Amino acid sequence: MEREKIIINDVGPRDGLQNQAKVLSVDERLQLIHALLRAGLTHIEIGAFVSPKAVPAMAGTDELAQCLLPGKEHLSALIPNRRGYDLAHASGVRTMGLVVAASETMNQRNIRMGTEDALAVSREVIAQGRADGNRVLAYVATAWECPFEGAVSADAVHRVCDELVAAGATEIVLADTIGAASPDQVRRLLPPLIAEYGVERLSCHFHDTRGMGVADVYAAVECGIRKFDASVGGLGGCPFAPGATGNVATEDVVVMLRQMGFDTGVDLAALLDAVDLVIALTGNCEGGRAINWIRRQREKGLL
Amino acid sequence: MEREKIIINDVGPRDGLQNQAKVLSVDERLQLIHALLRAGLTHIEIGAFVSPKAVPAMAGTDELAQCLLPGKEHLSALIPNRRGYDLAHASGVRTMGLVVAASETMNQRNIRMGTEDALAVSREVIAQGRADGNRVLAYVATAWECPFEGAVSADAVHRVCDELVAAGATEIVLADTIGAASPDQVRRLLPPLIAEYGVERLSCHFHDTRGMGVADVYAAVECGIRKFDASVGGLGGCPFAPGATGNVATEDVVVMLRQMGFDTGVDLAALLDAVDLVIALTGNCEGGRAINWIRRQREKGLL
Repeated sequence: MEREKIIINDVGPRDGLQNQAKVLSVDERLQLIHALLRAGLTHIEIGAFVSPKAVPAMAGTDELAQCLLPGKEHLSALIPNRRGYDLAHASGVRTMGLVVAASETMNQRNIRMGTEDALAVSREVIAQGRADGNRVLAYVATAWECPFEGAVSADAVHRVCDELVAAGATEIVLADTIGAASPDQVRRLLPPLIAEYGVERLSCHFHDTRGMGVADVYAAVECGIRKFDASVGGLGGCPFAPGATGNVATEDVVVMLRQMGFDTGVDLAALLDAVDLVIALTGNCEGGRAINWIRRQREKGLL
Repeated sequence: MEREKIIINDVGPRDGLQNQAKVLSVDERLQLIHALLRAGLTHIEIGAFVSPKAVPAMAGTDELAQCLLPGKEHLSALIPNRRGYDLAHASGVRTMGLVVAASETMNQRNIRMGTEDALAVSREVIAQGRADGNRVLAYVATAWECPFEGAVSADAVHRVCDELVAAGATEIVLADTIGAASPDQVRRLLPPLIAEYGVERLSCHFHDTRGMGVADVYAAVECGIRKFDASVGGLGGCPFAPGATGNVATEDVVVMLRQMGFDTGVDLAALLDAVDLVIALTGNCEGGRAINWIRRQREKGLL
């Protein structure tokens, strides 16, 4: 029987590295992305087209993109605005991620504009993306909780999603930016959104701040979600969101999903090589919760 | 509205410390148990009545019990056999935990007898426990996977449970001894058992070996389970089960359950003190996945 597919989008080279104390060179970032590609990951957030002054870790994403593309349409880059979109498009990126928070204060802090202005920018970028034949992933940040405002209402999330879907976003990514959601909250928010937009248009992005990241993925899988962000080694965080820590680790998610019978396309032995590379390059990452178990499986020749 | 209760049974002083390289003194173990009591934990596995030669870390559990008891009927001790039962009873212990694995090989390795012999011993101990007015928690080890035999059938688990329930065990604890279960497997095994024995007679024991411990707890809560083993700091393992690592951390479970609206009776600030004590005493524990978040909450005065 063919196993059902779940797509893992590894955001380690962007959401992960952006929040590391140590800034990696373009060459080191390229090594990491190649390691992820060797592990079978086809969806990778390779970098961000943001000000290198504000986010030095993402400088040179244009170079990186030119080394990796074209032909890999699911290697994506984060863009904060129209200028970011243009730079990404010029570098050959075909999948762009843009972010609008479901909470007003988070938009103010993260992108220095209110939600309405952020949606206006998003509409313009999405329209341009459609005109250029690109894919635009619309991240809805703080979809469960905002570090400044606390709990975010389902209504607020729905409103932002409606606008982004109406604008023509390829996909909506519900992001628990600070890793605050409990799995029961995941299970409450998702079903009406899935009913409205269709599960193939939705994806989820969890952090492991409170140790619930893997449980959140499980809860979302139970709801029907079949695409997840995760980051190799559990790298991650957000410089503008106090209290955020790493994304849920790609290896932890892959271990669970393959045991649940899903096909992620990821080779766990090759993924372990990528985790080891991340550990060596950053000096500030210990790998996901399952890392010791994965190592023992490799030692026993079971991967 | 009154919140629904979930009982956490902290097995750190037994399942945790038994598997630490460093052997703690009886006084240090007593300090730890007092820290857990201060955190509001009423159910604690304080030690084991086993051969001090085989398991040096559990030596002096009789002393420990005499310092702590009587009056605390939910402080339990592990007993491997009738002799262990008698020692525990003589020390004033009113709740005993005994273990039968659902897989033949695990029984052979763990208690050096086959499943039928283990059940015969259990029946005798349970009968004596009932005669003495004590509580006997019957652990069904390797309820999902055995390190020697692989996947364990639901039938094998049911058979052992049936015997233990028929013998009059106060409670059945379904134990994922090596931390192998995925949450979907938890959800498949539990409902028929709950239908048969009643949810108030069941409890679950998960390890975090593959990073799925918290997700497993969530899955079991969804099934209706309202009592869980966990260990402070995520201490744990099993010396006779290769590949086992720590129990799911008490602090991770408490963080999730309180956010889900359950009343565990545990004070998170005082629990953090207990985790810090465990870290200091063992030198080989970093705390659960949520520990950094809990620390930040304390720093901000939010616990």
